[in-house]
Amino acid sequence: MKNTFGTSVCVTLFGESHGKYIGATLDGIAPGIEIDEAYISDSLAKRRGDADVSTSRSETDEFIIVSGAYDGKTTGTPLTVLIPNSDVKPGDYTYGTARPSHADFTGFSKYHGYEDYRGGGHFSGRLTAALVAVGAIVRRALMNKNIFVGTHILQCGEAFDRVFDRFDEDISALAGMTFPVLDSSAAESVRAEIIASREASDSIGGVLQTAVIGVPAGIGEPWFDTLEGQIAHAVFSIPAVKGVEFGAGFALGFMHGSEANDAMRMVGGRVETVTNMSGGICGGISNGMPIIFQSAFKPTPSIGKPQNTVNFINGTDADMMISGRHDPAVVCRAAPVIDAMTAIVIADVMAQRYGTDWLA
Amino acid sequence: MKNTFGTSVCVTLFGESHGKYIGATLDGIAPGIEIDEAYISDSLAKRRGDADVSTSRSETDEFIIVSGAYDGKTTGTPLTVLIPNSDVKPGDYTYGTARPSHADFTGFSKYHGYEDYRGGGHFSGRLTAALVAVGAIVRRALMNKNIFVGTHILQCGEAFDRVFDRFDEDISALAGMTFPVLDSSAAESVRAEIIASREASDSIGGVLQTAVIGVPAGIGEPWFDTLEGQIAHAVFSIPAVKGVEFGAGFALGFMHGSEANDAMRMVGGRVETVTNMSGGICGGISNGMPIIFQSAFKPTPSIGKPQNTVNFINGTDADMMISGRHDPAVVCRAAPVIDAMTAIVIADVMAQRYGTDWLA
Amino acid sequence: MKNTFGTSVCVTLFGESHGKYIGATLDGIAPGIEIDEAYISDSLAKRRGDADVSTSRSETDEFIIVSGAYDGKTTGTPLTVLIPNSDVKPGDYTYGTARPSHADFTGFSKYHGYEDYRGGGHFSGRLTAALVAVGAIVRRALMNKNIFVGTHILQCGEAFDRVFDRFDEDISALAGMTFPVLDSSAAESVRAEIIASREASDSIGGVLQTAVIGVPAGIGEPWFDTLEGQIAHAVFSIPAVKGVEFGAGFALGFMHGSEANDAMRMVGGRVETVTNMSGGICGGISNGMPIIFQSAFKPTPSIGKPQNTVNFINGTDADMMISGRHDPAVVCRAAPVIDAMTAIVIADVMAQRYGTDWLA
Amino acid sequence: MKNTFGTSVCVTLFGESHGKYIGATLDGIAPGIEIDEAYISDSLAKRRGDADVSTSRSETDEFIIVSGAYDGKTTGTPLTVLIPNSDVKPGDYTYGTARPSHADFTGFSKYHGYEDYRGGGHFSGRLTAALVAVGAIVRRALMNKNIFVGTHILQCGEAFDRVFDRFDEDISALAGMTFPVLDSSAAESVRAEIIASREASDSIGGVLQTAVIGVPAGIGEPWFDTLEGQIAHAVFSIPAVKGVEFGAGFALGFMHGSEANDAMRMVGGRVETVTNMSGGICGGISNGMPIIFQSAFKPTPSIGKPQNTVNFINGTDADMMISGRHDPAVVCRAAPVIDAMTAIVIADVMAQRYGTDWLA
Repeated sequence: MKNTFGTSVCVTLFGESHGKYIGATLDGIAPGIEIDEAYISDSLAKRRGDADVSTSRSETDEFIIVSGAYDGKTTGTPLTVLIPNSDVKPGDYTYGTARPSHADFTGFSKYHGYEDYRGGGHFSGRLTAALVAVGAIVRRALMNKNIFVGTHILQCGEAFDRVFDRFDEDISALAGMTFPVLDSSAAESVRAEIIASREASDSIGGVLQTAVIGVPAGIGEPWFDTLEGQIAHAVFSIPAVKGVEFGAGFALGFMHGSEANDAMRMVGGRVETVTNMSGGICGGISNGMPIIFQSAFKPTPSIGKPQNTVNFINGTDADMMISGRHDPAVVCRAAPVIDAMTAIVIADVMAQRYGTDWLA
Repeated sequence: MKNTFGTSVCVTLFGESHGKYIGATLDGIAPGIEIDEAYISDSLAKRRGDADVSTSRSETDEFIIVSGAYDGKTTGTPLTVLIPNSDVKPGDYTYGTARPSHADFTGFSKYHGYEDYRGGGHFSGRLTAALVAVGAIVRRALMNKNIFVGTHILQCGEAFDRVFDRFDEDISALAGMTFPVLDSSAAESVRAEIIASREASDSIGGVLQTAVIGVPAGIGEPWFDTLEGQIAHAVFSIPAVKGVEFGAGFALGFMHGSEANDAMRMVGGRVETVTNMSGGICGGISNGMPIIFQSAFKPTPSIGKPQNTVNFINGTDADMMISGRHDPAVVCRAAPVIDAMTAIVIADVMAQRYGTDWLA
Repeated sequence: MKNTFGTSVCVTLFGESHGKYIGATLDGIAPGIEIDEAYISDSLAKRRGDADVSTSRSETDEFIIVSGAYDGKTTGTPLTVLIPNSDVKPGDYTYGTARPSHADFTGFSKYHGYEDYRGGGHFSGRLTAALVAVGAIVRRALMNKNIFVGTHILQCGEAFDRVFDRFDEDISALAGMTFPVLDSSAAESVRAEIIASREASDSIGGVLQTAVIGVPAGIGEPWFDTLEGQIAHAVFSIPAVKGVEFGAGFALGFMHGSEANDAMRMVGGRVETVTNMSGGICGGISNGMPIIFQSAFKPTPSIGKPQNTVNFINGTDADMMISGRHDPAVVCRAAPVIDAMTAIVIADVMAQRYGTDWLA
Repeated sequence: MKNTFGTSVCVTLFGESHGKYIGATLDGIAPGIEIDEAYISDSLAKRRGDADVSTSRSETDEFIIVSGAYDGKTTGTPLTVLIPNSDVKPGDYTYGTARPSHADFTGFSKYHGYEDYRGGGHFSGRLTAALVAVGAIVRRALMNKNIFVGTHILQCGEAFDRVFDRFDEDISALAGMTFPVLDSSAAESVRAEIIASREASDSIGGVLQTAVIGVPAGIGEPWFDTLEGQIAHAVFSIPAVKGVEFGAGFALGFMHGSEANDAMRMVGGRVETVTNMSGGICGGISNGMPIIFQSAFKPTPSIGKPQNTVNFINGTDADMMISGRHDPAVVCRAAPVIDAMTAIVIADVMAQRYGTDWLA
């Protein structure tokens, strides 16, 4: 299905970095959901990031909802959001010399040189703005169903944030931050890592941690469409994500069962687990605890250092030096994108289980 | 789509641990592929594992191909494999007390108590035998197209194997092993970890590393159906997997771009990368280098120690002690399952790109 | 997706005429549905048809439910039914001379000669037995939700049955018939057409009419997944169907809007239409009236007359005479197959709308 | 999947009659296909129809390709076309009184009153302009692969056109017509039927016949995704279609096998059928002959006569008289829409079989 994702609630994404518009179509959304335009704008602003650590192109991200909305509410028909590309530089773009660890060569291999390569084209992180816009509609509606999603920078280079602790308070606090870090001292060290990387004409990777609270037990499938599989499938489409783990994730490889098993207790008439090493999912199905996952982001591949590469048109080795200013870290702008994709997946799995009107 | 996975080549899985048969249907497979029954048997034997570290029930895994094959070759129509459940103990199965970190409570939450809970029912790792059987047909056919898949135990507790080095030789060596470890001294330490866990009535987690060689550049999609997303979606349906990372994965969170970027060079007229931090995938699309990913497995949740839990029928706290012998580690039996799922995904993405007859 | 159909409730079909088993896997079925084996057997008996007008091979259609059922109820996991092929004649089957209007040549074109051609192989109407078996489970469950499906022979050659009139009584009457004709005098004329065809070593086509009552208004989609499109997609997979029309169907081509429009009235607090030219569907969505459609079946292509054809292996013209006894008409055995496919589609669209537990 | 259709080549449709834009996204299209804007414009002009028998709103159908194209060619990424709604009358739209045989009541039943009801909203035939635009890109590309699609008005009320005879010449002739009728005398009688209906403040139904030439043998699937099922699924989403039949279709119900079977002969080294009662498809798979199907259209439900209906908000009977001018027949404007949907399906099934680059 390529650029469409989802079963009951689904999203189609289109656009290129230097095209007229980027956009996304949200389908299967319940009718009657209020569209909170301020919330969309705020989500887009969070994605543009914090000025001192982001050097993204200057976009206002004006969005236009061209279908599926009437009188401020969803109609239940496909809802398309367009975002104009205003800050497009017509200048010269060279083609053929692959930027290492970018999609230049793989794009050429797939599209045979017909791809719109300007500014990364269809591969550009710019497209995530459209995901954030439609995701914000879904995420806002989920809040009315007492489902909340939040993401913070868990790690960036050698700087670490604390993990989620009191989920509702932490998610609530994150909602107000442009630079999403739970521990304010960690905010300083993360910021320092990013600035140091930029000053070294380099970039830095990181890990984001996401929590979803309010999903009842019993959501997901035992095989193939496991909740982990559906979330990971969605999250891996965010540029630069190279790993997804749930609960204790890769650390489970070091653990014994007696450490990794989540003991269970009745709390207020409800089944809870004492720990949450499983990240809220057992056998592919939610257990009613917070769903927790971490996403690993590679460092931005655009760096201001000389690199060895190839010219794939000529079939020759080449050297390259990427000029201009670039985001030194994806992590500080990726949180709203993960939140958006996560919200869409959660709305989808809930609608699969409870029907298409569920979200309204 | 629940228990069906794939677009062009797809697999449907069915069965319960204590039903008459488990089985899988492979659809979209090209006609004329030779069915190598010895290879299927050998793959099933590898999944049953090594006697001294596996204590799985005694199954012979006789398989019956009931459709989609004629005269020893695939016909191109759905190919269904059945595997009888021979070693089913009719004995008493209790219901209601959740085994911690098993799917007992999530299964109840989803299926409302109608699930066949005996021996884990539909959640049982037993079903992976059917995946291995159909996956072996696909994997064997991929070899004829010079695509090879191999998986080894990278880590188990504190024991570590070396990473892939010379891919063709390593994959070839793994094909002959029931206990898939690249470094023979590591084999000892991994085995020691598993045996120590068993002797402590405990279990142990681990990480598997998988490589695929021979996939050309240009396979995958930039959004949603990224190669990472499709592989991860498949791998997360294997019981106990809680993390999937590609290339350097979570370690990228510590790296600078100058360390993480894969420099490129022309080698023998072909674009290659000098390092492979990206795991053979950029922008969701293969770059022609080996595809490398790691899968994190949690420790087997069945352990011989007292555990706190609940009875979800009564809504009461409970204590439990799981008796009987259990696999102390999933990792030593999971490699052929990952190989099978990986082979199915690779065949699918290749057939999407090159057409349904491609595999023949 | 080839041999899997459906979104929320879906079915996978496998098998060949002369294989060990044919079978079908029903996925997405709600847990806790009682499995009425007598109803399944009865549905299979109806499909075997009436002895004097059907000359199908002698099959007992013993069915085995190998997964997805426990204690007489669905578990909610994939439910696979196997039906052994008992009456398989090992004899000689020739290959290469195409039976006109059969799938011999098209099968060869698709499967390159690897198809299991014996007895029609995967194309055989025999496979519909598996659809009837799983469809019977769904159809029986729909009854508990007050949704009823019924099909009768509307036309066969020059013989005509009356159309549906009092839907509940008519559907109820059809439930008791092996030869499904509403007007008993029509039964005679239809039977006479069939017998006359057989005596002339020929075959005869026909039209079946299907009604579904109890589907509420608001089910379906405005584009692509219209209710008509989903039903037609399913019905066209029944061998020999060459046309599907809803309500007045092709007759609407002769009508004016003033004749074709269904006037509306409030009846007992409920919106009803006075006529039902639209077949219960407007804009792709159900209006709460009976859903009515007709399916056109071509005559059985196996006839006892000499025919001109080709040998597609040799690339030469050929003459052929199909010997043996064959069903002179598909229509008298197809009704339960249409009922089964219709039930599956209705369960699917209801589950898409109301969630996966809806049918329970 | 609702408003997305297709497997390898797929289309997503969005918009409302009175929204800012309608649009469609074409995904899975091969890179490097030339975009012939004049051909798109011409296709849109054909859809606007002939002035003397169409009274559609005055739209110029300016289209904007906002993604997936670069330098006049497809890039292989999702291609979105927007068409502004210029002739939108802000005036008063009443809500609650259902126009008989329109989707007013079914839309309300599905969308609970949140639908944008102005001018038919998302149900409006207006949206077919977007399908025609993207379909024209596909259809034009198919021509380069020697696959041609053409549709004519076979019947309208009591007026009949001749059936396809010399397919290449007929399709070529249709390409130049705005009023697509093969026999010029039939053009007069069809036109007369339409004008008479309009003068009687009424409307008239009709049947369109479509042919596709150049599709090789072996395309389609034996079950579920039969070529008939995939085409019918697509065609039924065109507003007002109530029946689809292939080859002799419903007439087969009157035929004997000896009349309905298509004898086969070798012609120029190629397998051909002497007749084409099967419409080019056997067993769900193409046989290399022209694919022929007929689509039944109901009369336009908007007529200038008093009608009995209901107000579904109040739950009361109501009388209504639809004022304004309306198309008295859909048939004279529907041909390019059928051509567009057919082209998309053919491109999809060919790409499924031969790979995603096939169309380039």
